[in-house]
Amino acid sequence: MNRESLHKYISEVEIVISLLPASFHIHVANACIELKKHLVTASYVDDSMSKLNEKAKSAGITILGEMGLDPGIDHMLAMKMINEARARKGKIKSFTSFCGGLPSPAAANNPLAYKFSWSPAGAIRAGRNPATYKSQGEILNVDGDNLYDSAVRFRVPDLPAFALELLPNRNSLVYGDLYGIANEASTIFRGTFRYEGFGKIMGTLARIGLFSAEAHPILKNGKRPTFRMFLCEILKVDSKNMDETLKEEKGISERILSLGFCKEQETATSAAKTIIFLGLNEQSDIPESCQSAFDVSCLRMEERLAYSNTEEDMVLLHHEVEVEFPDGKATEKHRATLLEFGKTKNGKMISAMARTVGIPAAVAALLLLVNKIKTRGVLRPLEPEVYVPALDILQAYGIDLGEKTD
Amino acid sequence: MNRESLHKYISEVEIVISLLPASFHIHVANACIELKKHLVTASYVDDSMSKLNEKAKSAGITILGEMGLDPGIDHMLAMKMINEARARKGKIKSFTSFCGGLPSPAAANNPLAYKFSWSPAGAIRAGRNPATYKSQGEILNVDGDNLYDSAVRFRVPDLPAFALELLPNRNSLVYGDLYGIANEASTIFRGTFRYEGFGKIMGTLARIGLFSAEAHPILKNGKRPTFRMFLCEILKVDSKNMDETLKEEKGISERILSLGFCKEQETATSAAKTIIFLGLNEQSDIPESCQSAFDVSCLRMEERLAYSNTEEDMVLLHHEVEVEFPDGKATEKHRATLLEFGKTKNGKMISAMARTVGIPAAVAALLLLVNKIKTRGVLRPLEPEVYVPALDILQAYGIDLGEKTD
Repeated sequence: MNRESLHKYISEVEIVISLLPASFHIHVANACIELKKHLVTASYVDDSMSKLNEKAKSAGITILGEMGLDPGIDHMLAMKMINEARARKGKIKSFTSFCGGLPSPAAANNPLAYKFSWSPAGAIRAGRNPATYKSQGEILNVDGDNLYDSAVRFRVPDLPAFALELLPNRNSLVYGDLYGIANEASTIFRGTFRYEGFGKIMGTLARIGLFSAEAHPILKNGKRPTFRMFLCEILKVDSKNMDETLKEEKGISERILSLGFCKEQETATSAAKTIIFLGLNEQSDIPESCQSAFDVSCLRMEERLAYSNTEEDMVLLHHEVEVEFPDGKATEKHRATLLEFGKTKNGKMISAMARTVGIPAAVAALLLLVNKIKTRGVLRPLEPEVYVPALDILQAYGIDLGEKTD
Repeated sequence: MNRESLHKYISEVEIVISLLPASFHIHVANACIELKKHLVTASYVDDSMSKLNEKAKSAGITILGEMGLDPGIDHMLAMKMINEARARKGKIKSFTSFCGGLPSPAAANNPLAYKFSWSPAGAIRAGRNPATYKSQGEILNVDGDNLYDSAVRFRVPDLPAFALELLPNRNSLVYGDLYGIANEASTIFRGTFRYEGFGKIMGTLARIGLFSAEAHPILKNGKRPTFRMFLCEILKVDSKNMDETLKEEKGISERILSLGFCKEQETATSAAKTIIFLGLNEQSDIPESCQSAFDVSCLRMEERLAYSNTEEDMVLLHHEVEVEFPDGKATEKHRATLLEFGKTKNGKMISAMARTVGIPAAVAALLLLVNKIKTRGVLRPLEPEVYVPALDILQAYGIDLGEKTD
């Protein structure tokens, strides 16, 4: 979309909702300021966007970012829980927030218990991001190299049937500042939900070298190796024994263990099952588009870990907030849980992810349209002016926030 | 239904499908013999039914029992896998079969991760049945008292997202005889699926005395105690401290631990959560219908662990068969997995249990109607004449049997 067509499009509408990739938003935002139209996006409000605050105010418009699921509903639910506790003179002792876009349990029908609704490249890279969080007053860092291995078992209190684990998600401390709880909360943790086993398998695949982005010598020249030949190379198998070792699970898992890529038999077996499920030991040629192990893995994950037309995805968001009160009143634990599944409508699957990202943005546009949101400038949905009516409408729409107190 | 109306009903139909309680079937079967009509049921073929074999043959009719899910699809799938292995000269080294009727993970929204679609009384009693099975040549017995505590963690290989456990299901050795593998299989095990934690919680509730069927002194006289007073009694709490101890999770779990009803803190906490979820610490009166702890528990489970109109149940059936071959050929592992969920049809929830029990019976009636099943007498669906076309139709109907080989 060039500048002219963007302007033409924006000039014709009342309000702009943009679910374009984040990199486009600065252009859209500038056009909205120029044409004096409100803008809603589900993307992060980055520095360049924040800097438009004064311009947006002067133009009398609202640029409301982070208005999807994560970021979006997570912010709104967090601020609702935090502000409700404060209204009762409570102090936030602990804030933990977990979110995941996953296949539904029935659709998690592979050894990795995961599927990709978009390119696996971004998701694999995200698994290598370092993370920082605060636990009982102590600030903890996890290196990108150790992220997958730092996964811990987790059960949602009211949903014990989901075999879940948590990976720490980037810098949780930022949320302490955003939510104004940095000084009072001794625990601030944001995590990503995966099904149990994901972290150990992905950590093992990473150590095997399957996510290495460097161009690999045997993928460079015109002659294409088979997937099995490539696996033979990175598992350092003598090519004489290639078929014997790499044809079946047992041979592959033994090789993984003996090279020290993981320590437990169970993990080695699961990693071998994943390699076989992805066809990384097959005897077909690797396409020319693949120059690195990362390319090979992404290609196979895209092919083999995609949703079928009838398979449901799942979105699970879970917040826990511990609140201390003055005068020796008992500490309270509040929690909220959003669980949504993909739904078939007129024979077409509408993913839970599309709904939980898209509906909040649509709700925000509605609230701007009826002048319920009056603040101008660049905003996140952290203020009651936005989150109170938005969460009400989401619940009326059938998105349950499962709020409970112990 | 009296004899006359039963006869009138049967005389007017071509074939009888009876999903009545098992105790009625002998009457239905006798009427069918008299009126020369085929009969299909989903109930067990017991001794009294087996004895009708000759009479049914003489009448030229087929009485096909055990034609539901379990018994039913489990038999058919087992015999298909066993006979296919035999056709390839294989010997069955191990046969394991697991089945469960459970809430879908999203509907398992309580600490027990279970719901009842019928009276809990039968299900609680079933949890106290002794079990016998064969594991690697050794015959093992589990007392009724230890059944809940014998639960072991289990993951279905292709569905790792379900946090499941297994309880041994009655006498597995009977199936060795039924399937003709008693002499060759060193492992024969049939288990019931529950979600993780169920066994430990139920075992703890049993030890607390919540399933005791004896009339309890404080429930006998006209005056009704509250649920909390009753809990106070069975947790031997000094009535002075009743409210303080039994109001919240912490007090209840500490009491459970100190009385030795379980050993682990996690189990005590889960049991306390279950007690609170069931309202067994509430301050309302226990109705007069309850004479025993068992009555009280059943009442509360029926009230609090029922499916809502929109909640889906789930049926999961999983067979694993290990096959040895002569001439040093590698041992093969075959598995099959049926996973079905409740489905809304015209605004009404049709449970997975109703469909997986009812459809096989309907399919059998169809096969009898078109004379595909020619054997007369009292049968189970163990012969290819029944299971080959029946499984084909079930799969055509969309019930996937997920057969795989390692």
